[in-house]
Amino acid sequence: MNERLSQQIAFLLEADKLKTVLRRTPLTDASRQENSAEHSWHLVLAAIVMAEHTTGTFDLLRVLELLTVHDLVEIDAGDTFAYDHGHLGTKAERERTAADRLFALLPPDQGARLRDRWEEFEAHETPEARFANALDRLQPLLQNACAGGGSWRNHEVTRQQVLRRMDPIRSTMPAVWPRVLEIIEAFCASGILREEADPVRE
Amino acid sequence: MNERLSQQIAFLLEADKLKTVLRRTPLTDASRQENSAEHSWHLVLAAIVMAEHTTGTFDLLRVLELLTVHDLVEIDAGDTFAYDHGHLGTKAERERTAADRLFALLPPDQGARLRDRWEEFEAHETPEARFANALDRLQPLLQNACAGGGSWRNHEVTRQQVLRRMDPIRSTMPAVWPRVLEIIEAFCASGILREEADPVRE
Repeated sequence: MNERLSQQIAFLLEADKLKTVLRRTPLTDASRQENSAEHSWHLVLAAIVMAEHTTGTFDLLRVLELLTVHDLVEIDAGDTFAYDHGHLGTKAERERTAADRLFALLPPDQGARLRDRWEEFEAHETPEARFANALDRLQPLLQNACAGGGSWRNHEVTRQQVLRRMDPIRSTMPAVWPRVLEIIEAFCASGILREEADPVRE
Repeated sequence: MNERLSQQIAFLLEADKLKTVLRRTPLTDASRQENSAEHSWHLVLAAIVMAEHTTGTFDLLRVLELLTVHDLVEIDAGDTFAYDHGHLGTKAERERTAADRLFALLPPDQGARLRDRWEEFEAHETPEARFANALDRLQPLLQNACAGGGSWRNHEVTRQQVLRRMDPIRSTMPAVWPRVLEIIEAFCASGILREEADPVRE
């Protein structure tokens, strides 16, 4: 029991480091970048509030667990910007190595269980993972919109890139999709989201 | 539906402000103070990991909901340091006023439901609220210990104050209590936690 408790405490203290991993998304007041721990809390809150907009049946507890652990691997692997295709290529391997280390801090049964939750989130296959991933797309969109363009503004992101990134919201929360389109169109109109580059440049 | 969705989005964007509310507890690396949003995420993770140490039966989903909303009122009321008896006197009224405003941003049924969760946390009466409150005591203790004394170091906190503050852990997670006592005694031995002042000064 003592050894088990020590492992759990060591894991929780290690998890503290997620508070120092910075994302590209700013807070809504644009005062600073968001970190991955507070982002994870915000997604858990969003799941509780937005659950009624999902299609089909799902287990909300499981969604909250997926969201709580979904970014833990960033403690070692760092946050990978969704529109950075260079780093996206190495993301899976970096995160797998991180998962090997971090979940092994826990007692084996518990480490395996939480690693399964992380793998489930990454696989986008269960209704719970699809809803959790859709929230992980929606929340930064709302924050970017509130912060006047946020991470789009500084990284030459295109309308088509954002539409592809947001697509999981279309199927998972169809009632929310028109709102997503409104936001994207408004930022295209203001010039912050670029139109797709012409094919020659692609 | 549109009005309902707009209210939910407005609430989620307002909730973003919890990321700017600073607590006295430092991160484990002592690099900065923790904010209440990332603290709430850490408690949700701790609930998932430490659930096996609680006595009696409880609903884990409800615990996660309590922890997710438990500090939202600090957006208006600020964080009240647990050992600051001056501010503790006005805490209940400040937080009630904050709850009146914040939960009213949501559609009425949902606002009432989440406000109930917050009131439940505050009342310490259900098994879920007792577990959630015990975690809210344990996590800062672990972080303070890891950060070399943390918020105790700068605020002349006594051994008896910490013991009283941690007492919910004793009944709710009895297996964890000896570890709590070890930490407190170590910080007394090193002089960071003071002994209770003599009665003349009290």
